[in-house]
Amino acid sequence: MFAERLKRVQVKVQEALDDALAFHDDIPVVHAMRYAVQGGKRLRAFLVLESARLHGIHDPEAMAAAAAVEALHAYSLVHDDLPCMDDDALRRGQPTVHVKWDQATAVLAGDALQTLAFELCCDPSLGARRIDLVTALAKASGAEGMVLGQALDIAAETAAEPLTLDEITRLQAGKTGALFTFAATAGAILAGADTRPLEDYARALGLAFQIADDILDVEGDPAKTGKKLGKDAAAGKATFVSLLGIDGARARARDLVADAEAALSPYGVKADTLREAARYTVSREV
Amino acid sequence: MFAERLKRVQVKVQEALDDALAFHDDIPVVHAMRYAVQGGKRLRAFLVLESARLHGIHDPEAMAAAAAVEALHAYSLVHDDLPCMDDDALRRGQPTVHVKWDQATAVLAGDALQTLAFELCCDPSLGARRIDLVTALAKASGAEGMVLGQALDIAAETAAEPLTLDEITRLQAGKTGALFTFAATAGAILAGADTRPLEDYARALGLAFQIADDILDVEGDPAKTGKKLGKDAAAGKATFVSLLGIDGARARARDLVADAEAALSPYGVKADTLREAARYTVSREV
Repeated sequence: MFAERLKRVQVKVQEALDDALAFHDDIPVVHAMRYAVQGGKRLRAFLVLESARLHGIHDPEAMAAAAAVEALHAYSLVHDDLPCMDDDALRRGQPTVHVKWDQATAVLAGDALQTLAFELCCDPSLGARRIDLVTALAKASGAEGMVLGQALDIAAETAAEPLTLDEITRLQAGKTGALFTFAATAGAILAGADTRPLEDYARALGLAFQIADDILDVEGDPAKTGKKLGKDAAAGKATFVSLLGIDGARARARDLVADAEAALSPYGVKADTLREAARYTVSREV
Repeated sequence: MFAERLKRVQVKVQEALDDALAFHDDIPVVHAMRYAVQGGKRLRAFLVLESARLHGIHDPEAMAAAAAVEALHAYSLVHDDLPCMDDDALRRGQPTVHVKWDQATAVLAGDALQTLAFELCCDPSLGARRIDLVTALAKASGAEGMVLGQALDIAAETAAEPLTLDEITRLQAGKTGALFTFAATAGAILAGADTRPLEDYARALGLAFQIADDILDVEGDPAKTGKKLGKDAAAGKATFVSLLGIDGARARARDLVADAEAALSPYGVKADTLREAARYTVSREV
Protein backbone atom coordinates (compact mmCIF):
# COMPACT_ATOMS: atom_id res chain seq x y z
CA MET A 1 0.00 0.00 0.00
CA PHE A 2 2.71 2.42 1.07
CA ALA A 3 5.11 1.50 -1.76
CA GLU A 4 2.49 2.07 -4.50
CA ARG A 5 1.28 5.26 -2.88
CA LEU A 6 4.84 6.58 -2.65
CA LYS A 7 5.46 5.74 -6.30
CA ARG A 8 2.32 7.62 -7.34
CA VAL A 9 3.33 10.57 -5.17
CA GLN A 10 6.76 10.62 -6.83
CA VAL A 11 5.20 10.93 -10.28
CA LYS A 12 2.62 13.54 -9.29
CA VAL A 13 5.02 15.72 -7.33
CA GLN A 14 7.58 15.66 -10.12
CA GLU A 15 4.87 16.88 -12.49
CA ALA A 16 3.99 19.69 -10.10
CA LEU A 17 7.63 20.75 -9.76
CA ASP A 18 8.19 20.58 -13.52
CA ASP A 19 5.10 22.75 -14.05
CA ALA A 20 6.30 25.25 -11.47
CA LEU A 21 9.65 25.51 -13.27
CA ALA A 22 8.24 25.66 -16.80
CA PHE A 23 8.55 29.43 -17.11
CA HIS A 24 10.39 30.92 -19.99
CA ASP A 25 13.73 32.08 -18.63
CA ASP A 26 16.22 29.55 -19.84
CA ILE A 27 19.27 30.65 -17.90
CA PRO A 28 21.70 28.21 -16.21
CA VAL A 29 20.15 28.91 -12.80
CA VAL A 30 16.75 27.68 -14.00
CA HIS A 31 18.35 24.60 -15.59
CA ALA A 32 20.08 23.94 -12.28
CA MET A 33 16.78 24.33 -10.39
CA ARG A 34 15.09 21.79 -12.69
CA TYR A 35 18.06 19.44 -12.22
CA ALA A 36 18.02 19.80 -8.43
CA VAL A 37 14.35 18.81 -8.09
CA GLN A 38 14.77 15.51 -9.97
CA GLY A 39 14.54 12.25 -8.06
CA GLY A 40 14.64 11.67 -4.33
CA LYS A 41 12.40 9.54 -2.17
CA ARG A 42 9.69 12.22 -1.90
CA LEU A 43 8.96 11.12 1.65
CA ARG A 44 8.19 14.70 2.70
CA ALA A 45 5.72 15.14 -0.18
CA PHE A 46 4.14 11.82 0.77
CA LEU A 47 3.70 13.03 4.37
CA VAL A 48 1.99 16.21 3.16
CA LEU A 49 -0.45 14.30 0.96
CA GLU A 50 -1.17 11.60 3.55
CA SER A 51 -1.78 14.10 6.33
CA ALA A 52 -4.09 15.95 3.94
CA ARG A 53 -5.95 12.72 3.09
CA LEU A 54 -6.39 12.00 6.82
CA HIS A 55 -8.30 15.29 7.00
CA GLY A 56 -10.45 14.71 3.93
CA ILE A 57 -8.31 16.83 1.60
CA HIS A 58 -7.70 15.23 -1.80
CA ASP A 59 -4.31 15.23 -3.53
CA PRO A 60 -4.98 18.13 -5.96
CA GLU A 61 -5.88 20.41 -3.02
CA ALA A 62 -2.57 19.63 -1.28
CA MET A 63 -0.21 19.01 -4.21
CA ALA A 64 1.24 22.54 -4.20
CA ALA A 65 2.24 22.04 -0.54
CA ALA A 66 3.81 18.66 -1.38
CA ALA A 67 5.80 20.29 -4.18
CA ALA A 68 6.72 23.17 -1.84
CA VAL A 69 8.28 20.93 0.78
CA GLU A 70 10.30 19.12 -1.88
CA ALA A 71 11.50 22.43 -3.37
CA LEU A 72 12.53 23.53 0.11
CA HIS A 73 14.31 20.23 0.71
CA ALA A 74 16.05 20.46 -2.69
CA TYR A 75 17.30 23.98 -1.85
CA SER A 76 18.76 22.73 1.43
CA LEU A 77 20.58 19.90 -0.35
CA VAL A 78 22.05 22.18 -3.05
CA HIS A 79 23.44 24.54 -0.39
CA ASP A 80 24.54 21.73 1.98
CA ASP A 81 26.57 20.18 -0.83
CA LEU A 82 28.56 23.40 -1.47
CA PRO A 83 32.36 23.26 -0.94
CA CYS A 84 32.10 25.62 2.04
CA MET A 85 29.49 23.33 3.66
CA ASP A 86 29.60 19.52 3.35
CA ASP A 87 31.56 19.63 0.06
CA ASP A 88 29.76 16.74 -1.66
CA ALA A 89 30.33 15.89 -5.32
CA LEU A 90 27.56 13.29 -5.62
CA ARG A 91 23.86 13.46 -4.78
CA ARG A 92 21.18 10.93 -5.78
CA GLY A 93 23.86 9.27 -7.95
CA GLN A 94 24.47 12.44 -9.98
CA PRO A 95 27.05 15.26 -9.82
CA THR A 96 25.97 17.96 -7.38
CA VAL A 97 24.87 21.34 -8.77
CA HIS A 98 28.13 23.21 -8.07
CA VAL A 99 30.08 20.38 -9.75
CA LYS A 100 27.84 20.29 -12.83
CA TRP A 101 27.62 24.11 -13.07
CA ASP A 102 29.56 26.26 -10.59
CA GLN A 103 29.23 27.61 -7.07
CA ALA A 104 27.52 30.86 -8.06
CA THR A 105 24.84 28.90 -9.94
CA ALA A 106 24.41 26.56 -6.96
CA VAL A 107 23.98 29.44 -4.51
CA LEU A 108 21.43 31.15 -6.77
CA ALA A 109 19.56 27.97 -7.69
CA GLY A 110 19.24 27.11 -4.00
CA ASP A 111 18.10 30.64 -3.20
CA ALA A 112 15.45 30.53 -5.94
CA LEU A 113 14.27 27.06 -4.87
CA GLN A 114 13.64 28.38 -1.38
CA THR A 115 11.64 31.24 -2.90
CA LEU A 116 9.76 28.76 -5.10
CA ALA A 117 8.80 26.75 -2.02
CA PHE A 118 7.12 29.81 -0.52
CA GLU A 119 5.50 30.70 -3.83
CA LEU A 120 4.04 27.18 -4.11
CA CYS A 121 2.72 27.41 -0.56
CA CYS A 122 0.81 30.55 -1.57
CA ASP A 123 -1.02 28.71 -4.35
CA PRO A 124 -4.77 29.43 -4.14
CA SER A 125 -5.47 25.70 -4.69
CA LEU A 126 -4.41 25.20 -1.06
CA GLY A 127 -7.43 27.12 0.17
CA ALA A 128 -8.16 29.74 2.79
CA ARG A 129 -5.76 28.52 5.49
CA ARG A 130 -2.65 28.56 3.31
CA ILE A 131 -1.27 31.58 5.16
CA ASP A 132 -0.95 29.29 8.21
CA LEU A 133 0.94 26.82 6.05
CA VAL A 134 3.36 29.50 4.80
CA THR A 135 3.93 30.56 8.42
CA ALA A 136 4.65 26.97 9.41
CA LEU A 137 7.04 26.51 6.48
CA ALA A 138 8.96 29.66 7.47
CA LYS A 139 9.22 28.54 11.10
CA ALA A 140 10.39 25.06 10.08
CA SER A 141 13.00 26.33 7.63
CA GLY A 142 14.72 29.23 9.32
CA ALA A 143 17.21 29.98 12.05
CA GLU A 144 15.05 28.23 14.65
CA GLY A 145 14.51 25.16 12.47
CA MET A 146 16.38 23.67 9.55
CA VAL A 147 19.08 26.35 9.29
CA LEU A 148 19.70 26.07 13.05
CA GLY A 149 20.30 22.33 12.62
CA GLN A 150 22.65 22.90 9.71
CA ALA A 151 24.50 25.60 11.67
CA LEU A 152 24.93 23.27 14.65
CA ASP A 153 26.21 20.62 12.24
CA ILE A 154 28.82 23.00 10.80
CA ALA A 155 29.84 24.09 14.32
CA ALA A 156 30.24 20.45 15.37
CA GLU A 157 32.90 19.94 12.70
CA THR A 158 35.30 22.32 14.41
CA ALA A 159 34.23 21.68 18.02
CA ALA A 160 36.88 20.41 20.45
CA GLU A 161 34.61 17.64 21.78
CA PRO A 162 32.28 15.33 19.81
CA LEU A 163 28.60 16.08 20.38
CA THR A 164 26.61 14.37 23.12
CA LEU A 165 23.40 12.44 22.46
CA ASP A 166 21.32 15.46 23.58
CA GLU A 167 23.24 17.77 21.27
CA ILE A 168 22.88 15.43 18.29
CA THR A 169 19.19 15.06 18.98
CA ARG A 170 18.78 18.87 19.00
CA LEU A 171 20.81 19.17 15.80
CA GLN A 172 18.68 16.54 14.10
CA ALA A 173 15.44 18.10 15.35
CA GLY A 174 16.40 21.18 13.34
CA LYS A 175 18.20 19.71 10.38
CA THR A 176 15.64 17.09 9.34
CA GLY A 177 12.98 17.07 12.08
CA ALA A 178 11.52 20.53 11.50
CA LEU A 179 10.69 19.88 7.85
CA PHE A 180 9.29 16.42 8.64
CA THR A 181 7.01 18.05 11.20
CA PHE A 182 5.92 20.67 8.71
CA ALA A 183 5.15 17.94 6.15
CA ALA A 184 3.29 15.65 8.52
CA THR A 185 1.15 18.45 9.95
CA ALA A 186 0.44 20.22 6.64
CA GLY A 187 -2.92 18.50 6.17
CA ALA A 188 -4.06 19.31 9.68
CA ILE A 189 -3.01 22.93 9.20
CA LEU A 190 -4.93 23.21 5.90
CA ALA A 191 -7.98 21.66 7.59
CA GLY A 192 -7.68 23.83 10.72
CA ALA A 193 -7.48 20.63 12.80
CA ASP A 194 -5.39 19.65 15.85
CA THR A 195 -1.79 19.15 14.76
CA ARG A 196 -0.48 17.53 17.95
CA PRO A 197 -0.81 13.82 17.11
CA LEU A 198 0.99 14.39 13.81
CA GLU A 199 3.66 16.47 15.55
CA ASP A 200 4.34 13.53 17.89
CA TYR A 201 4.39 11.18 14.92
CA ALA A 202 6.79 13.40 12.98
CA ARG A 203 9.14 13.92 15.92
CA ALA A 204 9.61 10.16 16.33
CA LEU A 205 9.68 9.57 12.56
CA GLY A 206 12.29 12.26 11.91
CA LEU A 207 14.58 10.94 14.61
CA ALA A 208 14.17 7.34 13.39
CA PHE A 209 14.91 8.55 9.85
CA GLN A 210 18.14 10.24 10.99
CA ILE A 211 19.28 7.17 12.96
CA ALA A 212 18.62 5.05 9.86
CA ASP A 213 20.70 7.56 7.86
CA ASP A 214 23.57 7.17 10.32
CA ILE A 215 23.29 3.37 10.04
CA LEU A 216 23.28 3.62 6.22
CA ASP A 217 26.37 5.82 6.40
CA VAL A 218 28.14 2.84 8.05
CA GLU A 219 26.48 -0.16 6.42
CA GLY A 220 24.82 1.18 3.29
CA ASP A 221 25.51 0.39 -0.35
CA PRO A 222 26.77 3.49 -2.22
CA ALA A 223 25.35 2.06 -5.46
CA LYS A 224 21.88 2.31 -3.88
CA THR A 225 22.15 5.49 -1.80
CA GLY A 226 23.80 7.43 -4.64
CA LYS A 227 26.02 9.38 -2.26
CA LYS A 228 29.38 8.95 -0.61
CA LEU A 229 29.20 6.92 2.61
CA GLY A 230 31.42 6.55 5.67
CA LYS A 231 31.92 10.31 5.76
CA ASP A 232 30.91 10.84 9.38
CA ALA A 233 33.31 8.22 10.74
CA ALA A 234 36.10 9.56 8.51
CA ALA A 235 35.49 13.06 9.87
CA GLY A 236 35.42 11.75 13.46
CA LYS A 237 31.87 13.14 13.80
CA ALA A 238 29.63 11.85 16.57
CA THR A 239 26.52 10.11 15.20
CA PHE A 240 23.74 8.03 16.73
CA VAL A 241 25.79 4.98 15.71
CA SER A 242 29.05 6.22 17.27
CA LEU A 243 27.21 7.07 20.49
CA LEU A 244 24.83 4.10 20.79
CA GLY A 245 26.65 1.41 18.82
CA ILE A 246 25.07 -0.17 15.77
CA ASP A 247 22.79 -2.47 17.79
CA GLY A 248 21.83 0.29 20.18
CA ALA A 249 21.03 2.61 17.28
CA ARG A 250 18.90 -0.08 15.65
CA ALA A 251 16.99 -0.69 18.90
CA ARG A 252 16.43 3.05 19.39
CA ALA A 253 15.11 3.37 15.83
CA ARG A 254 12.71 0.46 16.42
CA ASP A 255 11.41 2.10 19.61
CA LEU A 256 10.88 5.35 17.75
CA VAL A 257 8.92 3.59 15.02
CA ALA A 258 6.67 2.13 17.71
CA ASP A 259 6.25 5.63 19.19
CA ALA A 260 5.41 7.03 15.76
CA GLU A 261 2.81 4.33 15.13
CA ALA A 262 1.28 4.85 18.58
CA ALA A 263 0.99 8.61 18.01
CA LEU A 264 -1.40 7.89 15.14
CA SER A 265 -4.01 6.16 17.30
CA PRO A 266 -6.55 9.04 17.08
CA TYR A 267 -6.82 8.35 13.32
CA GLY A 268 -7.39 4.57 13.52
CA VAL A 269 -6.87 2.46 10.41
CA LYS A 270 -7.04 5.54 8.18
CA ALA A 271 -3.42 6.19 9.20
CA ASP A 272 -2.11 2.74 8.25
CA THR A 273 -0.13 4.09 5.29
CA LEU A 274 1.62 6.54 7.63
CA ARG A 275 2.38 3.61 9.96
CA GLU A 276 3.90 1.73 7.02
CA ALA A 277 5.93 4.84 6.18
CA ALA A 278 7.36 4.83 9.69
CA ARG A 279 8.46 1.20 9.31
CA TYR A 280 9.90 2.03 5.88
CA THR A 281 12.12 4.84 7.20
CA VAL A 282 14.20 2.36 9.21
CA SER A 283 14.22 -0.51 6.68
CA ARG A 284 15.07 1.54 3.58
CA GLU A 285 18.32 1.03 1.68
CA VAL A 286 18.31 4.50 0.08
CA MET B 1 9.93 65.96 4.92
CA PHE B 2 11.43 62.96 3.17
CA ALA B 3 14.75 63.09 5.08
CA GLU B 4 13.05 63.12 8.51
CA ARG B 5 10.59 60.44 7.50
CA LEU B 6 13.44 58.22 6.22
CA LYS B 7 15.36 58.72 9.46
CA ARG B 8 12.30 57.70 11.51
CA VAL B 9 11.77 54.67 9.26
CA GLN B 10 15.41 53.65 9.76
CA VAL B 11 14.98 53.61 13.55
CA LYS B 12 11.61 51.82 13.51
CA VAL B 13 12.62 49.17 10.99
CA GLN B 14 15.84 48.43 12.86
CA GLU B 15 13.78 47.87 16.00
CA ALA B 16 11.48 45.51 14.12
CA LEU B 17 14.43 43.53 12.70
CA ASP B 18 16.14 43.39 16.10
CA ASP B 19 12.91 42.09 17.65
CA ALA B 20 12.54 39.48 14.93
CA LEU B 21 16.09 38.27 15.62
CA ALA B 22 15.85 38.35 19.40
CA PHE B 23 15.23 34.62 19.77
CA HIS B 24 17.41 32.57 22.01
CA ASP B 25 19.73 30.63 19.72
CA ASP B 26 23.04 32.36 19.99
CA ILE B 27 24.96 30.59 17.26
CA PRO B 28 27.29 32.36 14.80
CA VAL B 29 24.63 32.24 12.07
CA VAL B 30 22.23 34.27 14.22
CA HIS B 31 24.99 36.75 15.09
CA ALA B 32 25.72 37.06 11.38
CA MET B 33 22.03 37.64 10.62
CA ARG B 34 21.88 40.44 13.21
CA TYR B 35 25.05 41.95 11.74
CA ALA B 36 23.75 41.76 8.18
CA VAL B 37 20.56 43.70 8.95
CA GLN B 38 22.40 46.70 10.47
CA GLY B 39 22.46 49.97 8.58
CA GLY B 40 21.55 50.66 4.99
CA LYS B 41 19.40 53.39 3.53
CA ARG B 42 16.12 51.54 4.24
CA LEU B 43 14.65 52.96 1.06
CA ARG B 44 12.67 49.74 0.45
CA ALA B 45 11.20 49.87 3.96
CA PHE B 46 10.34 53.52 3.41
CA LEU B 47 8.51 52.63 0.19
CA VAL B 48 6.47 49.96 2.00
CA LEU B 49 5.44 52.35 4.77
CA GLU B 50 4.69 55.24 2.41
CA SER B 51 2.60 53.12 0.07
CA ALA B 52 0.75 51.85 3.14
CA ARG B 53 0.17 55.40 4.39
CA LEU B 54 -1.20 56.38 0.94
CA HIS B 55 -3.86 53.72 1.51
CA GLY B 56 -4.73 54.72 5.07
CA ILE B 57 -2.62 52.02 6.70
CA HIS B 58 -0.57 53.26 9.67
CA ASP B 59 3.05 52.27 10.26
CA PRO B 60 2.42 49.56 12.90
CA GLU B 61 0.09 47.72 10.49
CA ALA B 62 2.78 47.67 7.78
CA MET B 63 6.00 47.53 9.80
CA ALA B 64 6.39 43.74 9.48
CA ALA B 65 6.30 44.11 5.68
CA ALA B 66 8.89 46.91 5.84
CA ALA B 67 11.15 44.69 7.96
CA ALA B 68 10.50 41.78 5.58
CA VAL B 69 11.70 43.64 2.50
CA GLU B 70 14.86 44.74 4.33
CA ALA B 71 15.54 41.17 5.51
CA LEU B 72 15.10 39.98 1.93
CA HIS B 73 17.43 42.73 0.67
CA ALA B 74 20.01 41.89 3.37
CA TYR B 75 19.95 38.20 2.34
CA SER B 76 20.60 39.18 -1.29
CA LEU B 77 23.57 41.34 -0.27
CA VAL B 78 25.13 38.64 1.92
CA HIS B 79 24.95 36.12 -0.92
CA ASP B 80 25.96 38.63 -3.64
CA ASP B 81 29.12 39.47 -1.67
CA LEU B 82 30.27 35.81 -1.54
CA PRO B 83 33.61 34.98 -3.22
CA CYS B 84 31.83 32.88 -5.88
CA MET B 85 29.54 35.84 -6.70
CA ASP B 86 30.75 39.48 -6.60
CA ASP B 87 33.54 38.72 -4.08
CA ASP B 88 33.19 41.90 -2.01
CA ALA B 89 35.07 42.41 1.26
CA LEU B 90 33.32 45.63 2.28
CA ARG B 91 29.64 46.49 2.64
CA ARG B 92 28.17 49.58 4.31
CA GLY B 93 31.74 50.37 5.47
CA GLN B 94 32.07 47.07 7.35
CA PRO B 95 33.62 43.69 6.51
CA THR B 96 31.17 41.48 4.64
CA VAL B 97 29.71 38.45 6.45
CA HIS B 98 31.96 35.83 4.85
CA VAL B 99 35.02 37.96 5.72
CA LYS B 100 33.96 38.51 9.34
CA TRP B 101 32.81 34.87 9.81
CA ASP B 102 33.24 32.41 6.95
CA GLN B 103 31.50 31.33 3.75
CA ALA B 104 29.38 28.62 5.36
CA THR B 105 28.03 31.12 7.89
CA ALA B 106 27.35 33.63 5.09
CA VAL B 107 25.42 31.07 3.02
CA LEU B 108 23.35 29.99 6.03
CA ALA B 109 22.77 33.52 7.36
CA GLY B 110 21.56 34.59 3.91
CA ASP B 111 19.33 31.53 3.66
CA ALA B 112 17.79 32.22 7.06
CA LEU B 113 17.31 35.92 6.28
CA GLN B 114 15.29 34.95 3.21
CA THR B 115 13.18 32.66 5.40
CA LEU B 116 12.81 35.45 7.97
CA ALA B 117 11.51 37.78 5.26
CA PHE B 118 8.70 35.34 4.48
CA GLU B 119 8.00 34.77 8.16
CA LEU B 120 7.70 38.53 8.73
CA CYS B 121 5.33 38.81 5.77
CA CYS B 122 3.07 36.24 7.46
CA ASP B 123 2.73 38.37 10.58
CA PRO B 124 -0.94 38.69 11.59
CA SER B 125 -0.42 42.44 12.17
CA LEU B 126 -0.44 42.79 8.37
CA GLY B 127 -4.10 41.80 8.22
CA ALA B 128 -6.27 39.58 6.08
CA ARG B 129 -4.59 40.24 2.72
CA ARG B 130 -1.08 39.29 3.83
CA ILE B 131 -1.20 36.10 1.76
CA ASP B 132 -1.25 38.35 -1.33
CA LEU B 133 1.81 40.14 0.02
CA VAL B 134 3.68 36.86 0.58
CA THR B 135 2.82 35.84 -2.98
CA ALA B 136 4.11 39.16 -4.31
CA LEU B 137 7.33 38.83 -2.28
CA ALA B 138 7.95 35.35 -3.69
CA LYS B 139 7.35 36.51 -7.26
CA ALA B 140 9.66 39.51 -6.81
CA SER B 141 12.46 37.49 -5.23
CA GLY B 142 12.74 34.30 -7.24
CA ALA B 143 13.96 33.04 -10.57
CA GLU B 144 11.64 35.42 -12.46
CA GLY B 145 12.65 38.43 -10.35
CA MET B 146 15.66 39.24 -8.21
CA VAL B 147 17.48 35.93 -8.69
CA LEU B 148 16.97 36.21 -12.46
CA GLY B 149 18.64 39.62 -12.40
CA GLN B 150 21.53 38.34 -10.34
CA ALA B 151 21.91 35.32 -12.66
CA LEU B 152 21.99 37.58 -15.73
CA ASP B 153 24.61 39.70 -13.95
CA ILE B 154 26.81 36.64 -13.29
CA ALA B 155 26.36 35.48 -16.90
CA ALA B 156 27.36 38.93 -18.18
CA GLU B 157 30.74 38.61 -16.49
CA THR B 158 31.79 35.75 -18.75
CA ALA B 159 29.86 36.80 -21.87
CA ALA B 160 31.85 37.43 -25.06
CA GLU B 161 30.09 40.76 -25.74
CA PRO B 162 29.20 43.52 -23.25
CA LEU B 163 25.46 43.78 -22.62
CA THR B 164 23.23 46.09 -24.67
CA LEU B 165 21.02 48.76 -23.13
CA ASP B 166 17.98 46.45 -23.41
CA GLU B 167 19.83 43.62 -21.71
CA ILE B 168 21.07 45.82 -18.88
CA THR B 169 17.57 47.19 -18.41
CA ARG B 170 16.19 43.64 -18.13
CA LEU B 171 18.97 42.67 -15.72
CA GLN B 172 18.23 45.69 -13.56
CA ALA B 173 14.47 45.11 -13.66
CA GLY B 174 15.16 41.80 -11.92
CA LYS B 175 18.11 42.61 -9.73
CA THR B 176 16.78 45.76 -8.07
CA GLY B 177 13.51 46.60 -9.84
CA ALA B 178 11.45 43.62 -8.68
CA LEU B 179 11.99 44.31 -4.99
CA PHE B 180 11.38 48.06 -5.47
CA THR B 181 8.07 47.21 -7.13
CA PHE B 182 7.15 44.87 -4.29
CA ALA B 183 7.98 47.57 -1.74
CA ALA B 184 6.14 50.38 -3.52
CA THR B 185 2.99 48.30 -4.11
CA ALA B 186 2.91 46.65 -0.66
CA GLY B 187 0.45 49.16 0.76
CA ALA B 188 -1.89 48.85 -2.20
CA ILE B 189 -1.75 45.05 -1.89
CA LEU B 190 -2.56 45.15 1.83
CA ALA B 191 -5.45 47.52 1.11
CA GLY B 192 -6.72 45.50 -1.86
CA ALA B 193 -6.33 48.62 -4.04
CA ASP B 194 -5.13 49.13 -7.61
CA THR B 195 -1.35 48.60 -7.73
CA ARG B 196 -0.73 49.97 -11.23
CA PRO B 197 0.21 53.60 -10.48
CA LEU B 198 2.73 52.43 -7.89
CA GLU B 199 4.08 49.79 -10.29
CA ASP B 200 4.75 52.55 -12.84
CA TYR B 201 6.34 54.68 -10.13
CA ALA B 202 8.54 51.81 -8.93
CA ARG B 203 9.64 50.82 -12.43
CA ALA B 204 10.95 54.34 -13.12
CA LEU B 205 12.32 54.74 -9.61
CA GLY B 206 14.20 51.42 -9.68
CA LEU B 207 15.82 52.20 -13.00
CA ALA B 208 16.76 55.72 -11.87
CA PHE B 209 18.22 54.21 -8.70
CA GLN B 210 20.36 51.79 -10.72
CA ILE B 211 21.61 54.50 -13.06
CA ALA B 212 22.53 56.59 -10.00
CA ASP B 213 24.39 53.54 -8.65
CA ASP B 214 26.34 53.27 -11.88
CA ILE B 215 27.19 56.99 -11.71
CA LEU B 216 28.29 56.58 -8.07
CA ASP B 217 30.48 53.66 -9.10
CA VAL B 218 32.37 56.11 -11.34
CA GLU B 219 32.16 59.39 -9.41
CA GLY B 220 31.25 58.40 -5.86
CA ASP B 221 33.23 58.81 -2.65
CA PRO B 222 34.14 55.41 -1.14
CA ALA B 223 34.22 57.02 2.31
CA LYS B 224 30.51 57.78 1.89
CA THR B 225 29.26 54.73 -0.02
CA GLY B 226 31.11 52.29 2.27
CA LYS B 227 31.87 49.93 -0.60
CA LYS B 228 34.55 49.53 -3.24
CA LEU B 229 33.93 51.67 -6.32
CA GLY B 230 35.12 51.57 -9.92
CA LYS B 231 34.53 47.82 -10.01
CA ASP B 232 32.34 47.73 -13.11
CA ALA B 233 34.81 49.67 -15.25
CA ALA B 234 37.70 47.54 -13.94
CA ALA B 235 35.78 44.39 -14.90
CA GLY B 236 34.97 45.82 -18.33
CA LYS B 237 31.25 45.46 -17.53
CA ALA B 238 28.70 47.42 -19.50
CA THR B 239 26.75 49.85 -17.32
CA PHE B 240 24.29 52.66 -17.99
CA VAL B 241 27.30 55.01 -17.80
CA SER B 242 29.45 53.02 -20.23
CA LEU B 243 26.55 52.84 -22.68
CA LEU B 244 25.06 56.33 -22.35
CA GLY B 245 28.05 58.35 -21.17
CA ILE B 246 27.98 60.17 -17.83
CA ASP B 247 25.88 63.08 -19.14
CA GLY B 248 23.52 60.78 -21.01
CA ALA B 249 23.09 58.64 -17.90
CA ARG B 250 22.37 61.70 -15.79
CA ALA B 251 19.78 62.94 -18.32
CA ARG B 252 18.12 59.53 -18.46
CA ALA B 253 17.93 59.41 -14.66
CA ARG B 254 16.32 62.87 -14.59
CA ASP B 255 13.71 61.78 -17.16
CA LEU B 256 12.94 58.70 -15.08
CA VAL B 257 12.46 60.79 -11.94
CA ALA B 258 9.95 62.91 -13.88
CA ASP B 259 8.17 59.71 -15.01
CA ALA B 260 8.11 58.44 -11.43
CA GLU B 261 6.64 61.71 -10.14
CA ALA B 262 4.03 61.75 -12.90
CA ALA B 263 2.95 58.19 -12.12
CA LEU B 264 1.84 59.38 -8.67
CA SER B 265 -0.75 61.83 -10.00
CA PRO B 266 -3.75 59.72 -8.86
CA TYR B 267 -2.66 60.30 -5.25
CA GLY B 268 -2.24 64.10 -5.41
CA VAL B 269 -0.24 65.86 -2.71
CA LYS B 270 -0.52 62.84 -0.42
CA ALA B 271 2.30 61.30 -2.48
CA ASP B 272 4.71 64.24 -2.13
CA THR B 273 7.07 62.28 0.13
CA LEU B 274 7.29 59.57 -2.54
CA ARG B 275 8.05 62.30 -5.09
CA GLU B 276 10.85 63.57 -2.86
CA ALA B 277 12.12 60.02 -2.58
CA ALA B 278 12.36 59.79 -6.35
CA ARG B 279 14.43 62.95 -6.48
CA TYR B 280 16.61 61.65 -3.65
CA THR B 281 17.48 58.41 -5.48
CA VAL B 282 19.40 60.35 -8.13
CA SER B 283 20.97 62.99 -5.85
CA ARG B 284 22.18 60.66 -3.08
CA GLU B 285 25.87 60.20 -2.33
CA VAL B 286 25.41 56.80 -0.66
